[in-house]
Amino acid sequence: MRERPDKSEQRNRSRSFAPKGGRRPSHAFRKPARDADAPVILYGWHSVAAALRNPARKIRRLWATENALRRLADDGIAAPRQTELVRPDAIAARLPGDAVHQGLLAEADPLPAPDIEELKDGVVLVLDQITDPHNVGAIVRTAAAFGVAAIVTTARHSPEATGVLAKSASGGLEAVPLVTVTNLARGLEVLKASGLLVVGLAGEGDVDLGSVELKTPLALVLGAEGKGLRQLTRATCDVIARLELPGAIKSLNVSNAAAVALYIATARVGSRPA
Amino acid sequence: MRERPDKSEQRNRSRSFAPKGGRRPSHAFRKPARDADAPVILYGWHSVAAALRNPARKIRRLWATENALRRLADDGIAAPRQTELVRPDAIAARLPGDAVHQGLLAEADPLPAPDIEELKDGVVLVLDQITDPHNVGAIVRTAAAFGVAAIVTTARHSPEATGVLAKSASGGLEAVPLVTVTNLARGLEVLKASGLLVVGLAGEGDVDLGSVELKTPLALVLGAEGKGLRQLTRATCDVIARLELPGAIKSLNVSNAAAVALYIATARVGSRPA
Repeated sequence: MRERPDKSEQRNRSRSFAPKGGRRPSHAFRKPARDADAPVILYGWHSVAAALRNPARKIRRLWATENALRRLADDGIAAPRQTELVRPDAIAARLPGDAVHQGLLAEADPLPAPDIEELKDGVVLVLDQITDPHNVGAIVRTAAAFGVAAIVTTARHSPEATGVLAKSASGGLEAVPLVTVTNLARGLEVLKASGLLVVGLAGEGDVDLGSVELKTPLALVLGAEGKGLRQLTRATCDVIARLELPGAIKSLNVSNAAAVALYIATARVGSRPA
Repeated sequence: MRERPDKSEQRNRSRSFAPKGGRRPSHAFRKPARDADAPVILYGWHSVAAALRNPARKIRRLWATENALRRLADDGIAAPRQTELVRPDAIAARLPGDAVHQGLLAEADPLPAPDIEELKDGVVLVLDQITDPHNVGAIVRTAAAFGVAAIVTTARHSPEATGVLAKSASGGLEAVPLVTVTNLARGLEVLKASGLLVVGLAGEGDVDLGSVELKTPLALVLGAEGKGLRQLTRATCDVIARLELPGAIKSLNVSNAAAVALYIATARVGSRPA
């Protein structure tokens, strides 16, 4: 499945989620680019309930068990017209074996997202090729909890905003827009031009994040575990900071690192402009 | 497999990891209690390298690929006598399908752990029936990064310190002892009698953790996602605090919550006594 050039409106609207794969000569067997028409898959109570509550999220179809429909009604959440009453195993059959669906599965349109040029306020989180969808989902959830203005990811080597990522995000996708850029260093330059202080996090950072003079608008940049920030990403940051870890292990998993960094940043500067 | 009464020394040494299942009349098909002789399974670079570096960890047997053995040698880590050179698929065959083993798999004895009465210093993390081994493993890693003195878990409804938990802990099991108690409320009373301030975390806490006057020795108590702290656990805490979350989502996943709480606590009081 490839993007259809004749569906430009659809493609533009969901552009920020779309081009994740393809066109890398070194990976002949890579997945082709995501079809802009492909639905976002949402399952589990928090992900689906948050999507149904979000007026900006267009639900194409909902599969729900009787119990789940009752729970939605109890919470005052309207089920869409395109709802199909099903048994739990009909939902399980459409998901990976270990998926906890809690009687709810939705197909939805991707959410619209701003362009990177529009990000000028608050705290922006930037992910440099973090590939694990559980990690990115947990980061989206935590970013939503700390009132992050947007998450910037790379078009390549980033998971889609669907499925496991959406489940781990626990509804956070409805609250934090995901902005995808092709070239991250260029994206960081745009943020700097918009007045954001760009702070990269790395174990070998020059200063403790807790002692950096932070200000909004602020971009916090996190790299993948093991690989860390790429050289060009690092060179583009205004400051490279570390998290001060007093214990025997000198790194956190990336979602835990994001949580601590966001706590430090939002406790210091507030997450949104006053 | 059940504990063998004739192996009292073995049983005592590993007691803190042992009695996780069994004897619950309402769960006739529950797994029997863990055999105290059952090995701890460690796989992946960080878990196995940290265990090989830990003089207190008795390795029964190591399976390693040629590449992994070379990497151990490069890092100055001695392989035990009971090492078997194998191909990667021989290791993969002994693990769940998606396990990332990086050419290393070890069977080891459980680590000795102190009794709860011995915990009198620093910051202690208490987990009230957190069942997901990925979450508990991530918490162990983060606890090790923040220099936590010990983690207290319940004998029932807690995962074993092996396999996925050990992998997620990324070597953290070698740095932070896990102390298991049968009755958590009674365990908290012991900690209080030892002079620890016992602070429970809950979304509906009375005060922001960041504004609680923290002091060491300190116990931070976390509950499972969704269920939270059990009523008796909550009633036994000195203070119930919340994490101040300014965003649209009002809870963090439990390992992210642990990371933020430990950052707040250790930044304020230091993780270990001076």
